[in-house]
Amino acid sequence: MGRVEKESEGKSFFEKVWTLVLHRGFIIPTAEIYGGIAGIYDFGPLGTLLAKKLVDLWRRFFVIGETNFPVYEINGSTILPYEVLVASGHVDSFVDPIVTCLKCKARMRADHLVEEALEIRVEGATVEELTRIIRENGLRCPNCGGDLSEVSLFNLMFKTEVGPLGGKTAFLRPETAQVIFIDFKKVFQVMRGKLPFGIAQIGKAYRNEISPRQGLIRLREFTQMEIEVFINPKEVNNHPGIEEVADSKFRILMRENQLKGGGAVEVTVREAVEKGIVPNAYMAYYLSKETEFFERIGIPRSKFYFRHMMPEETPFYSGGNFDLEVELSIGVKEVVGNAYRTDYDLRSHMKHSGEDLSVDVDGEKVVPEVVEPSFGVERIIYCILEHCYREDDGRGWSWFQFPPEIAPVTALILPLMKKEPLVSKAKELFKAARRSGIFVEYDDRGSIGKRYARADEIGVPVCVTVDYQTINDGTVTLRSRDTRKQVRVKAELVPKLLLDLSEGRMSLSDLEALQG
Amino acid sequence: MGRVEKESEGKSFFEKVWTLVLHRGFIIPTAEIYGGIAGIYDFGPLGTLLAKKLVDLWRRFFVIGETNFPVYEINGSTILPYEVLVASGHVDSFVDPIVTCLKCKARMRADHLVEEALEIRVEGATVEELTRIIRENGLRCPNCGGDLSEVSLFNLMFKTEVGPLGGKTAFLRPETAQVIFIDFKKVFQVMRGKLPFGIAQIGKAYRNEISPRQGLIRLREFTQMEIEVFINPKEVNNHPGIEEVADSKFRILMRENQLKGGGAVEVTVREAVEKGIVPNAYMAYYLSKETEFFERIGIPRSKFYFRHMMPEETPFYSGGNFDLEVELSIGVKEVVGNAYRTDYDLRSHMKHSGEDLSVDVDGEKVVPEVVEPSFGVERIIYCILEHCYREDDGRGWSWFQFPPEIAPVTALILPLMKKEPLVSKAKELFKAARRSGIFVEYDDRGSIGKRYARADEIGVPVCVTVDYQTINDGTVTLRSRDTRKQVRVKAELVPKLLLDLSEGRMSLSDLEALQG
Repeated sequence: MGRVEKESEGKSFFEKVWTLVLHRGFIIPTAEIYGGIAGIYDFGPLGTLLAKKLVDLWRRFFVIGETNFPVYEINGSTILPYEVLVASGHVDSFVDPIVTCLKCKARMRADHLVEEALEIRVEGATVEELTRIIRENGLRCPNCGGDLSEVSLFNLMFKTEVGPLGGKTAFLRPETAQVIFIDFKKVFQVMRGKLPFGIAQIGKAYRNEISPRQGLIRLREFTQMEIEVFINPKEVNNHPGIEEVADSKFRILMRENQLKGGGAVEVTVREAVEKGIVPNAYMAYYLSKETEFFERIGIPRSKFYFRHMMPEETPFYSGGNFDLEVELSIGVKEVVGNAYRTDYDLRSHMKHSGEDLSVDVDGEKVVPEVVEPSFGVERIIYCILEHCYREDDGRGWSWFQFPPEIAPVTALILPLMKKEPLVSKAKELFKAARRSGIFVEYDDRGSIGKRYARADEIGVPVCVTVDYQTINDGTVTLRSRDTRKQVRVKAELVPKLLLDLSEGRMSLSDLEALQG
Repeated sequence: MGRVEKESEGKSFFEKVWTLVLHRGFIIPTAEIYGGIAGIYDFGPLGTLLAKKLVDLWRRFFVIGETNFPVYEINGSTILPYEVLVASGHVDSFVDPIVTCLKCKARMRADHLVEEALEIRVEGATVEELTRIIRENGLRCPNCGGDLSEVSLFNLMFKTEVGPLGGKTAFLRPETAQVIFIDFKKVFQVMRGKLPFGIAQIGKAYRNEISPRQGLIRLREFTQMEIEVFINPKEVNNHPGIEEVADSKFRILMRENQLKGGGAVEVTVREAVEKGIVPNAYMAYYLSKETEFFERIGIPRSKFYFRHMMPEETPFYSGGNFDLEVELSIGVKEVVGNAYRTDYDLRSHMKHSGEDLSVDVDGEKVVPEVVEPSFGVERIIYCILEHCYREDDGRGWSWFQFPPEIAPVTALILPLMKKEPLVSKAKELFKAARRSGIFVEYDDRGSIGKRYARADEIGVPVCVTVDYQTINDGTVTLRSRDTRKQVRVKAELVPKLLLDLSEGRMSLSDLEALQG
């Protein structure tokens, strides 16, 4: 840690967190030994564990835990044929404006260039408008000062070919959602569906970003957790579980406040629906559930809100989009998109495929409307890392205060010294915990203080120490990461305690209170 | 079900199982409403649940459950830069021989064409040899009888470009393993590794097969679960957990028996190592663990064995490959590959990247050797579906006898009739089970017999029925899928029982024995 501390001097908060994240191998740049590849990362051991905990909790919240209406998870192909992406509009419209430096040949996002150079917003501007702005303001290449080309459009999908020699054109899916739309009717039929009916999917999506940057924020390969909820268009304000959450609150940045420069306000689900702050009850339900979820994963409620996207940021067919935005050291970033996609996608696939995707509702055929919460896993992981990062509080090292429910490693099991019978006893405990399916680690290298420090650094909530008293009375020491307070409990209780901690039935304060 | 039964008349066993699999939406052909895309499938709701249970059990067995040495899971990028695949040999050697019909333009695997037409094996034959065999035997297009082109080589990787306009050539990874090799040194360092050291990965891999076929057996997009175990070359027979499994047995088809036409024989781990039947102790360890695993997921021990691959089927650098082959109605299929990859991959990446991938062992630098068990998820799913499929045993419907530990739906909760207070009580139980994280379903549509039948058809181990006695004494009926026997237990015990069933701590016979 001495090394990390030293390296962090004079760095921005982002650089400090990101350095530690790379240092501990939460994240590894893909093909690092070959110089890497921009915008593409691997999850290392701790990142994989953290992401798995996050995904499992999400499932418990939004899929298995959804008992108001059925939500089924599917896992679709990442390669999609050309026709699907034509129908979805991605072949025509999934494009970014690009400009090339005529001198150094660098390629960059034209809108970002303009926004950064002139501090104006140009969302929705055409290529002609962007070219004109660049010319009129005499903008030049920010790298070498060279002249810039005209602005053109670049499609962000990764293209490939399926089948030998001159095969079919296909793309890596730019979002998981399209697989859900094209499978909707089949899933609805085989599961004997009734509306409302949800389909969830967790998986990779791909965008060939022109300038990926900011670590995990803008990636070329990333992971989405999405749900499409299919609703009878006449029943969008009739959510079967709305009463349970009617008094729950969430923070929302309304359109008028964005224009006036005002901040987010807190509203209840009931108010949001009754006053038309959100377009329907399903949207309100998800904004409240997401608020609960984000607090559970360690992002303070004061640090995020939902922004009602302005008209120019919203697709023409949308009934309203609400982005969950989190305050980070690198600015406010969107990490969940909530979109009222109406019946646009299903109708478009009906038109292009010729298949009838409507369903029967009380003897009538309807094309369902869709509300979509879409979570970006890597961005959320970054939010967790930044918001759980703790600077030196007299410990001499920085550490991560992950909620135990999502901590990559639930406990470190250690013998006080590398001596028998302490080592055998500690290994026995380690194996018992692992058999219960809890990810714990065993460590007998270095002083006990160093081992506690290493545990803190990767956010391990509890250290379980086997000492000589263990041999006499069967108790072990539990050290809480947050307060460094220690309590003694019977060793045989440890696997159950760790399981409760790891599955959110117990907090670290509960654990600290176990004994005087 | 009447419909499925009727459709299954006159069909092969494969067709019957596959029809049911598609009918129940375990699997959905990708982009089916657009005519599909050969060799690419989506997991529907039941397939996703089944695959998730399989993957979780695998993790408990081979990753979290591995306490003899550290095994860390990583989750790497599916897009890999050109350089990585040059180093791995895939750019040059990941090719299949292809032949084109000059008349109908169909493209096909030249080796398969020859093997099927002449009933000979041509593994390892060059393109010149294949062309000669085709010419000498006057082979023609099996579709239209047309003349065939010369045989050429086709690279099976999906190619794409990263970055805008004339970006970097990249490929979808043809195996998850390469990500592990290129990340090895970093993971080893950040986790303060000691040999032996395992890195696991579960994720997608891609092969642009010339002629994908047989449902889930030869796919273009598929899922691998792999472990690379990095071992000190001097210690390959010194596996720290070998004693635990020394007397465990597995079935092996040795090379001499393949030549003589003999069958598989059963050996113990101890024998296999001592007699040199396998090249090292790690290989023996995995063959025995895999035997245990396959029995747990419902494949009878008599239906699979490990085949020692013949020299012409083995890469030149390999110290020995052993495929787990399962007997299926469509023939014997490889579903797990176990490869002694030696230090080939690490040395190759050292050479191409210029990075030192050796590690310190007792003051000495060594390049570790690697033993790799590699599981094909979709193929295993198909084995489970076929081996758990049960024909009519007097029930009037076909059903799946999934082990409860991997059953997609653990229980169906149902009110005897769609009446209060039965419905509320059943829904309460349903919600309690879902809160415990168990995937259960609620069903109140149709007669109780029909609902039991629907549960059987998708392999639900237990039906929990709430009836009028429930209201009086708080007990519910548990119906076992396998024997259709019913027992009554207290309703409040149900979530715990289902959890034990779903996590393998209880069998259906245990459950049937709960009460007279």
